[in-house]
Amino acid sequence: MITGKNYIGNTLSATGNVRYQTFNPIENKANDPVFTEATAAEIDRAAVLARQAFSTFSKLSNRRRSEFLNCIADEIMSLDETLIKMYCAESGLPEGRAIGERGRTIGQLKSFAALVSQGDWVEATIDHGDPNRRPLAKPDLRKMYIPIGPIAVFGASNFPLAYSTAGGDTAAALAAGCPVIVKSHPMHAGTGELVASAVIKAAEKTGMPNGVFSNLNSRGIEVGKQLVSHEFIKGVGFTGSIKGGRALYDIAAQRKEPIPVFAEMGSINPVLMFPKALANRANELAKTYAHSITLGTGQFCTNPGLILGIKGEALQTFSNQLAHEILQIEPGCMLHPNIHHAYEQLKEIASTQRGTVVLANSKDQILANHAHQAVVFVPGEIFLNNPTLHQEVFGPFSLIVACEDVMQLTQIIDNLEGQLTGTIISDDNEIVHYKSAVDALERRVGRLIFNGVPTGVEVCPAMNHGGPYPASTDSRFTAVGIHSIRRWVRPISFQDWPDELLPDVLKENNPLGIIRTVDGRIEVKH
Amino acid sequence: MITGKNYIGNTLSATGNVRYQTFNPIENKANDPVFTEATAAEIDRAAVLARQAFSTFSKLSNRRRSEFLNCIADEIMSLDETLIKMYCAESGLPEGRAIGERGRTIGQLKSFAALVSQGDWVEATIDHGDPNRRPLAKPDLRKMYIPIGPIAVFGASNFPLAYSTAGGDTAAALAAGCPVIVKSHPMHAGTGELVASAVIKAAEKTGMPNGVFSNLNSRGIEVGKQLVSHEFIKGVGFTGSIKGGRALYDIAAQRKEPIPVFAEMGSINPVLMFPKALANRANELAKTYAHSITLGTGQFCTNPGLILGIKGEALQTFSNQLAHEILQIEPGCMLHPNIHHAYEQLKEIASTQRGTVVLANSKDQILANHAHQAVVFVPGEIFLNNPTLHQEVFGPFSLIVACEDVMQLTQIIDNLEGQLTGTIISDDNEIVHYKSAVDALERRVGRLIFNGVPTGVEVCPAMNHGGPYPASTDSRFTAVGIHSIRRWVRPISFQDWPDELLPDVLKENNPLGIIRTVDGRIEVKH
Repeated sequence: MITGKNYIGNTLSATGNVRYQTFNPIENKANDPVFTEATAAEIDRAAVLARQAFSTFSKLSNRRRSEFLNCIADEIMSLDETLIKMYCAESGLPEGRAIGERGRTIGQLKSFAALVSQGDWVEATIDHGDPNRRPLAKPDLRKMYIPIGPIAVFGASNFPLAYSTAGGDTAAALAAGCPVIVKSHPMHAGTGELVASAVIKAAEKTGMPNGVFSNLNSRGIEVGKQLVSHEFIKGVGFTGSIKGGRALYDIAAQRKEPIPVFAEMGSINPVLMFPKALANRANELAKTYAHSITLGTGQFCTNPGLILGIKGEALQTFSNQLAHEILQIEPGCMLHPNIHHAYEQLKEIASTQRGTVVLANSKDQILANHAHQAVVFVPGEIFLNNPTLHQEVFGPFSLIVACEDVMQLTQIIDNLEGQLTGTIISDDNEIVHYKSAVDALERRVGRLIFNGVPTGVEVCPAMNHGGPYPASTDSRFTAVGIHSIRRWVRPISFQDWPDELLPDVLKENNPLGIIRTVDGRIEVKH
Repeated sequence: MITGKNYIGNTLSATGNVRYQTFNPIENKANDPVFTEATAAEIDRAAVLARQAFSTFSKLSNRRRSEFLNCIADEIMSLDETLIKMYCAESGLPEGRAIGERGRTIGQLKSFAALVSQGDWVEATIDHGDPNRRPLAKPDLRKMYIPIGPIAVFGASNFPLAYSTAGGDTAAALAAGCPVIVKSHPMHAGTGELVASAVIKAAEKTGMPNGVFSNLNSRGIEVGKQLVSHEFIKGVGFTGSIKGGRALYDIAAQRKEPIPVFAEMGSINPVLMFPKALANRANELAKTYAHSITLGTGQFCTNPGLILGIKGEALQTFSNQLAHEILQIEPGCMLHPNIHHAYEQLKEIASTQRGTVVLANSKDQILANHAHQAVVFVPGEIFLNNPTLHQEVFGPFSLIVACEDVMQLTQIIDNLEGQLTGTIISDDNEIVHYKSAVDALERRVGRLIFNGVPTGVEVCPAMNHGGPYPASTDSRFTAVGIHSIRRWVRPISFQDWPDELLPDVLKENNPLGIIRTVDGRIEVKH
């Protein structure tokens, strides 16, 4: 049952008087539960508990933290139909997507549980001392990763499970040993409370310290601002708009003690389609891309919002085919009336810029909060000189740019902002003629895809999800996959430390049998 | 010969009209060479060249970059006596220190050359695809580190070689594939120009692109501000004061595209001395610490500026011994009259706070720019409530705090700012009684030392030099050792990329024979 309250550590609390409801975009009406926004005192209490919890939680054995993460996964599964129904009611997304995203969330929790139970992630590095070295004896040094402190996690509107309450940021932070305070997304407060109840249950079952997790309801931006400003918060994870992410980054940077913010923000995910590929398989590409652009009603951060080609018949044919194919797809419901409204507005702005040609944008009457997919065409020169066209249109929209030649194509890529992904569509080794463009693309993105689509972010160690600003605020880290744990840890060295006082991962006889780098050589588990 | 000009890429340039000289603190007079500060146009030119150089430099083979780094080391050695004499004339530091620091600088360059030639540093991670996976085929993903772009490096006043022109930041950035623009330290512009000439010679000899390195003279703060604001600069390395580092951090954070700043700043390096150790070996500890506090005239970032003990006879005896021993040491010359002046001022402020007792601070006449070492004593309660006493006094100064008990000791540590190091002096397993204090220390520092001194930063993979703010602006990275390369790189993933187009480090047959993580398992070089 939904209480509408905040979890301040293990305790349900609702002392405030700001209340709100979530919205069912399919039924076009508010959902029943009423949520109470967290007060300044509740936020402070959550931060104080998190700080207290940090001193014990950060010192727990790998096995204990792993148990906690696995138990969260189990408790989320126990929510069963209740969770799936609430997810659908608050997002307008279909049940299949809800089940798939739950699977991804569980998978992430379990992969971090496995990572932590194994222990290699601390990247233990040992350099033995040498008392006989001259002129100075060489000390014994042993380095490992430790957690940085309580982390504030902001849930994403477009992933109510996988990038929210117990999503990737939370799983990585808990795995590292950092307590987490979630600023629940106002559009899916019910889904958030359900998942939070699962985390709290797991924390209690596995004996975690009170304060290891809190969940704060918020209707607007105030709760988040206060949370990021709190001196006990030591890092921030965010997935959402550039405006929102940058605002949090600015608050964090202006603190007396600045803290790292990892915000995964906007991206238009340029796709370079070379002429031979277009000539060879315009139909197939049009079908594939119509599907990719409209997947999840275009509400993925890896949505292909920009298609770059060389002007000519092949590009023209493909463009018309894409327009045709995309109109065959049933319009989808967007997450919330606000998101739908913003989509229609940004689409209108992009479609009416000087020199643009609208290839697809049905005006038929459709259901409330459903989005008309659209394809717009523009010459390279116009695109290059109009920054408005470089902005993300969040929804089932793509802009096709017809470049004069490879030089203009390269220039356009050099002038794009940072991106999560860049895709190359190329046949018969034609890519060799576009080296400068491909090199430029590599400098602008976090992931390069060959003859595929950018949507679909595989969760695996080799995945990088992030990229140069504004794709993310710190391109040096990924938000997806086990290496995302590095956002929330820092190295510490122990010099001439007695073996019996060292953490197990650094002890001379390697009691946990983890992979370590010893005197410059990797020693694999025995 | 010193020209006093800037290196804008490979070209000497001095179009400005702001001129300055460096100062010999031993002879208490200005050095002869006259330097010309870089103009806005020269700064812009250096940035434009760096951006151009980046596209080729970032793509060079590991072998080529390694050659460049080794050649820099050789060219620095070729400067021979000229460099050593200039170093001493501009710093007041003795010849032995100059030679030692040169050795450290050469060692760093060579260790990065070795790292790069080997190739493992890109942390290649490969997850093979599975076309038969259901419901969706699994893509092939391959991840590696690539450089982030041109880096601005700010030379440190207290390490004219090892943390300056071709010091650790520069070596790490060049190794990663990032061009470097150095903002030369005004106190050792001559040393800077000599080392810059060696880097440029090496760049020319090994065929590096023009713009891979520039060296900008600056008298004040304007050159640095402009450099960090320049849109082509993608990261900043700084070693110096909190005020200076924070100013650069703020500029970088407020850019349209914020960039990472790694600033290694102030630290007072708390030392916890437990009673048994003090009772057992007050004399030895007093001698050791008198030496550590005055090493390099106290101008090390790891200088032990704060000694924390439990009040009682043992601490009292040690304190008096330390005061006695420190006065036996010959006063040393400081780097510059400004630094000496700041030392005397901050020492005076610290010594005259309510409740402090000055144990050592000779008033004898000494040579110009030489520093009187000082030891001050204060009760824990007073220290706890007076933040002025928590500030760094840069020079041969240490504050001894007598705590009531382990609770107060822990509370004091919890209230300290972030620190580079923390040291424990402990005998006969007495440390078990101070667990809360040791745990608190671990949360505040980047390196823990047992029964040693914090001064002396070994350059090795297991070293961590950095720590929670304000020890550094990003505790997630070290400034010393090969892992410092991670400050200047970001991951990129290649999805379903054709093998022949992949960088060598990611090709299926591993042509470079590097260590990689493949499908979750480490594959050691064959």
